Amino acid sequence: MRTAILSVGTEILFGQITNTNTVFLSQELNAMGIDVVYHYTVGDNESRLHDLIKLAFTDCDLVITTGGLGPTQDDLTKETIAKVMGDKLVLHEPSLESIKEAFNRMGKEMTENNIKQAYMPSKSTIFDNDRGTAPGFALEIHGKTAICLPGPPREMKNMFEKKVRPYLEAKSDSVIFYKIIRTYGIGESSLETELLDLINNQTDPTIATYAKEGESYLRVASKRKTKEEASKAVDEMIKQIDMRIPGHIYSTNGDDLDKVVCEKLIDRNISVACAESLTGGLLSGQFINHGGISKCFDRSYVTYSNQAKVEELNVSPKTLERFGAVSEETAREMVLGLYEKTKCDICISTTGIAGPDGGSEDKPVGLVYICAKFGDKIVCEELKLRNSGRAGIRNRTILAVMNLVNNLIEVDQ
Amino acid sequence: MRTAILSVGTEILFGQITNTNTVFLSQELNAMGIDVVYHYTVGDNESRLHDLIKLAFTDCDLVITTGGLGPTQDDLTKETIAKVMGDKLVLHEPSLESIKEAFNRMGKEMTENNIKQAYMPSKSTIFDNDRGTAPGFALEIHGKTAICLPGPPREMKNMFEKKVRPYLEAKSDSVIFYKIIRTYGIGESSLETELLDLINNQTDPTIATYAKEGESYLRVASKRKTKEEASKAVDEMIKQIDMRIPGHIYSTNGDDLDKVVCEKLIDRNISVACAESLTGGLLSGQFINHGGISKCFDRSYVTYSNQAKVEELNVSPKTLERFGAVSEETAREMVLGLYEKTKCDICISTTGIAGPDGGSEDKPVGLVYICAKFGDKIVCEELKLRNSGRAGIRNRTILAVMNLVNNLIEVDQ
Repeated sequence: MRTAILSVGTEILFGQITNTNTVFLSQELNAMGIDVVYHYTVGDNESRLHDLIKLAFTDCDLVITTGGLGPTQDDLTKETIAKVMGDKLVLHEPSLESIKEAFNRMGKEMTENNIKQAYMPSKSTIFDNDRGTAPGFALEIHGKTAICLPGPPREMKNMFEKKVRPYLEAKSDSVIFYKIIRTYGIGESSLETELLDLINNQTDPTIATYAKEGESYLRVASKRKTKEEASKAVDEMIKQIDMRIPGHIYSTNGDDLDKVVCEKLIDRNISVACAESLTGGLLSGQFINHGGISKCFDRSYVTYSNQAKVEELNVSPKTLERFGAVSEETAREMVLGLYEKTKCDICISTTGIAGPDGGSEDKPVGLVYICAKFGDKIVCEELKLRNSGRAGIRNRTILAVMNLVNNLIEVDQ
Repeated sequence: MRTAILSVGTEILFGQITNTNTVFLSQELNAMGIDVVYHYTVGDNESRLHDLIKLAFTDCDLVITTGGLGPTQDDLTKETIAKVMGDKLVLHEPSLESIKEAFNRMGKEMTENNIKQAYMPSKSTIFDNDRGTAPGFALEIHGKTAICLPGPPREMKNMFEKKVRPYLEAKSDSVIFYKIIRTYGIGESSLETELLDLINNQTDPTIATYAKEGESYLRVASKRKTKEEASKAVDEMIKQIDMRIPGHIYSTNGDDLDKVVCEKLIDRNISVACAESLTGGLLSGQFINHGGISKCFDRSYVTYSNQAKVEELNVSPKTLERFGAVSEETAREMVLGLYEKTKCDICISTTGIAGPDGGSEDKPVGLVYICAKFGDKIVCEELKLRNSGRAGIRNRTILAVMNLVNNLIEVDQ
């Protein structure tokens, strides 16, 4: 199915937002065996939108749009799709009810222009939006299909998973099954080198490598008659890959490392406390992002100032003076002090230089120490992170902590 | 100058890379007063590339391409641009010399296919590439201009700054100036309702509304002969908008609310401490994301468990029992306990129900209490947030805290 992804929104043309919707859709559609051959972006401009939709359908069977389904006057996607495809908009009562309910739940008055969101092409299959007010839809006329999704990524992704994927799967006569293999500690080009012959000889399953801040991951996909056949082929390929890069794979279902770690902590009822300097609360925030973690996660100290490290964690002023706040010694004392106070099973500390200032030749921006205690074991690691901005350095530190914790509690089993 | 940005590369259609080139070019071109009206992405496919370039020139005077200038067979941009515009490729000796030198510097043998990179349209202005081997160029024929840039962002951005910007500035006779107006506490549709006549009567400056998780913002843009005229027109419009939605605008330069708050804290040397339950470290993480905040940000307690609230912040077990951890009373005691320990100028607490479990009819998911103390003033707020997922509820809580702090310290002046 030749497919175009059409993003609607002047803010994209202004460069105000990065078009992550298109990246997500491209990955998902390709993995389903659907050929994405164009990306288009157009502003909130009716005639250009009209011409572009028309153009997209000359070469493609499927056009997926994001954006322009909202309540305001410059939201034109539905109207224009209906016009190009020869349908008209009619009031869809269930959608109107949903929108009214959503406003009720928020305790807000529904303004008149919100009714616009409930007008849908008369021949469309409606996708209700349980994360926002604008419903999406699929409209199939004379063998051409338009699928229109809301712009906010949270709403769009949710609607894709719950509605669009089943809709598209029902149209296909084969099944694609894929798994996302997450790895830690191996770069994309090394990964590709290790797997080059597997990648080059790929017909089915196919293997694609991707890079994301601080990690590389793989998609292994198979297109077969049945899901069982495809899933078996994928699993066999994953076994081969695992043998090539031992110790690097931490999940084969796409799960983030922090999710993998949190599930183990919850499952084994391991209590956690953090003493954060560099990460300033973000590490705790990563833990508490997981439902069910409250049974394990006890507390954290964000000891940003030296004084706080001394007062809260009993770090010795002499250690701070002699080795500095950014040192293995300080990271270790933070963990020990944390353990004394909380007696938690896992105690973790972070300290480092996030920049842009504060670096020196001796201790450059990106120098980080992390430390974790679990039972009798205390492990400290020095990280020399490339200067990838304050946020980048912190994110990579959190990833390294999660990897450290994952290994620590794994060995214990 | 109506402009299309055309990205060439199958890896983009696969979703393997995020198209940051287009974001960069859109921002820079718009800021120069050049109207970007389309983004296109096409794979390394000659006939589709050909048709898309042709199409782009029917509606645009300027087409800027990135990618497809490399040495391999599937790099087709130059050949196709020349074909569509009626020019031919000729060997450009200085480019060939540069490429040879680049290989010398790297200590590598130049393979035969690299000569391809030195063939350029005969009528083009060549942009040499001091960060890579593929030169770029501008080709102007019959009033239509193509500018072709290499794909790697490092090379593309460098070439844009050094070559393309001066080339385009020499062609333009007007300037666009715009400001991004950020607001809090007003939805996109209410915002549009308040400003409907201004938006409808817009010719210059133009006004556009956008929605982002938990907030709405506006772009006010003017295109005039000089930057001074444009900026004056924008500022006058912003004054009118401010009168329509008093108290809602927190920045007129696009800055995030947390940046606005942190700059005030740093500027006025106001010390900060947090006691986080619901936000679990993320509020602190938001503060410490700002360079220079270490002088103000003292410490935080992530008191996720009730025991931690009692031990660290001296919250009364009776309060917890009687009103629950998610209550105004607990939020207030958290702030008071935090102040006793830290004596910080601003003390902040958060408590609430992030879901998906733990809600009840009395205290549903999304019920949040925030509290802040500044001098003699203690302000607590109850938030009833729509269930927008754990992350969404936390993000909106942080935004509400920043707004509360912004108002608290503002009133003090």
